[in-house]
Amino acid sequence: MFRTVYRVYEISLFGSLSQFDLLKLTGFIETVLASSIAKAYIDEIRQKVETFDRQPVLVGFLANNDPAARMYANWTKKTCEESGFKYVLKEVNKEELEDEVLAANEDDEVNGMMVYFPVFGTRQDQYLQQLISPEKDVEGLSHIYLQNLYHNVRYLDKEEKKKSILPCTPLAIVKILEYLGVYNTLIPYGNRLYGKTITVINRSEIVGRPLAALLANDGAVVYSFDIENVQRFTRGKGLKMKHHEVADVDISLKDATNISDVVITGVPTESYKFPVEYLKDGAVCINFSSFKNFDPEVKNHASLYVPSIGKVTISMLLRNLLRLIDNKSQ
Amino acid sequence: MFRTVYRVYEISLFGSLSQFDLLKLTGFIETVLASSIAKAYIDEIRQKVETFDRQPVLVGFLANNDPAARMYANWTKKTCEESGFKYVLKEVNKEELEDEVLAANEDDEVNGMMVYFPVFGTRQDQYLQQLISPEKDVEGLSHIYLQNLYHNVRYLDKEEKKKSILPCTPLAIVKILEYLGVYNTLIPYGNRLYGKTITVINRSEIVGRPLAALLANDGAVVYSFDIENVQRFTRGKGLKMKHHEVADVDISLKDATNISDVVITGVPTESYKFPVEYLKDGAVCINFSSFKNFDPEVKNHASLYVPSIGKVTISMLLRNLLRLIDNKSQ
Repeated sequence: MFRTVYRVYEISLFGSLSQFDLLKLTGFIETVLASSIAKAYIDEIRQKVETFDRQPVLVGFLANNDPAARMYANWTKKTCEESGFKYVLKEVNKEELEDEVLAANEDDEVNGMMVYFPVFGTRQDQYLQQLISPEKDVEGLSHIYLQNLYHNVRYLDKEEKKKSILPCTPLAIVKILEYLGVYNTLIPYGNRLYGKTITVINRSEIVGRPLAALLANDGAVVYSFDIENVQRFTRGKGLKMKHHEVADVDISLKDATNISDVVITGVPTESYKFPVEYLKDGAVCINFSSFKNFDPEVKNHASLYVPSIGKVTISMLLRNLLRLIDNKSQ
Repeated sequence: MFRTVYRVYEISLFGSLSQFDLLKLTGFIETVLASSIAKAYIDEIRQKVETFDRQPVLVGFLANNDPAARMYANWTKKTCEESGFKYVLKEVNKEELEDEVLAANEDDEVNGMMVYFPVFGTRQDQYLQQLISPEKDVEGLSHIYLQNLYHNVRYLDKEEKKKSILPCTPLAIVKILEYLGVYNTLIPYGNRLYGKTITVINRSEIVGRPLAALLANDGAVVYSFDIENVQRFTRGKGLKMKHHEVADVDISLKDATNISDVVITGVPTESYKFPVEYLKDGAVCINFSSFKNFDPEVKNHASLYVPSIGKVTISMLLRNLLRLIDNKSQ
């Protein structure tokens, strides 16, 4: 009670302060760590796994010498073991990878698998990705899952018993936005981003494009930037049911982010820094690049800032694995 | 008879001429046009279509302004009409393409379809490619077809009634090599390139890599070049049945092409010219790039030269379409 009064005093003291300045003064601006967001999911996952007769098995295939991939693998192993899963890292020659993946597809001991890319660094990597059976694809990158995402189809079967799998990085970002209160829980499910404008800087097939579609399907207006052009994703009507619509638009990054409630970056270079002066005061900022796309000054503009999301992504990987196990038992 | 005697006279006149010089002198070196190779296939296809109650329908989706794509579409239309097929060109906005492809998948009037790429020029194009139902994929680029190719699996079903579809450009090159007599028909089927060394300059997922695998599966040693590195494809043992093996190798283009019976180029730039002085005398040269990767001097070194393959590719497209219709009736 006393603290509230104290804050009101500050308001009168500084007169014409904006609501955002107030937030800054009252210390509300914060860096939100992925670990805090992941915790609730990890707890939920661990409780579910405790009810199983047998530890679920996740296999990770490492066929490159990328230290970042190995770090991610180690991190996945740690999270798996903390959550009751068995994690098997298979280090293979890149030429053996194809046969190894096909063998794991057939192996009943393996519940889920993932490959640490890049392997060849060419389109051959997409070929390898599609070799993983959708029944064991914890990353949710099989063509059928992406197709369902883009068409807002949530189940694999007509009986609606088997849920489609969402790609784990876009899903992690949705969960982060839910945690941060950007999703409005008073609005009916499926429309909870209605009225929100979001800029996504990255349009990869793995994260940026599916993310823009997911956010638009939930009601947001999304400006999607890549090197080539800008697209606006909004909710539209498709063949069979409502799904997002995309249009090329002519808007600058400055103008788009100036009206955005959320700015999400995923530029895979060390040199890229988002110009934080473009931000609307109090915007929510999320970076999913392994490089820091925001300088620390982002805190002078943003209300909430999530500098990295890896731990949430891994918890979504395990959540997808549980969903695959559920689907199999249907 | 007189001509033969005359040639023998030339031999004695020039003394120490190699067999290849002889070929040059006797006018055997020739440029082989794709149209001559395609003719037999087109005749066969036309005869088969004449037995049908209903014209097969091929739909081409054009969603770019690329004049090369439009030319290819016009050319396909012409070949279709000459061969008894109905060709429908659908010009659509790139944002409508996804729904159009899905509608054509469901349309019983459509027997086969293809998209003229690039559309977005990004990995989104691969996503679009995979939207085409394998049952209507005349280009043979669905993941299941490529996976079967790499694993030397020739049928879609255990009963071996439905044949897997081969990607049309690599298939066209195989047919060209058969026509040119590079495949030795005295050797049992599946081993007819045994003893042949072939260099392929291009390792795209659409042509170069599947082509190298096809040739290796037929017994050849294939050196596959791309910007990054060199790989050697040979026949090996896989999980379930014999298929090609790949190894990174350290060999220069000069050394590889110096021992190659066949050199196949597909470098998509105007400036690239294969150094024809590397060729083994009498090599067979095939260019599948839309740019001329060989200068006219290739004829001073090669025994047979195929400067472009487009017409054979289109005949393979129609052959695949007939195979899809066959598969459906099984």
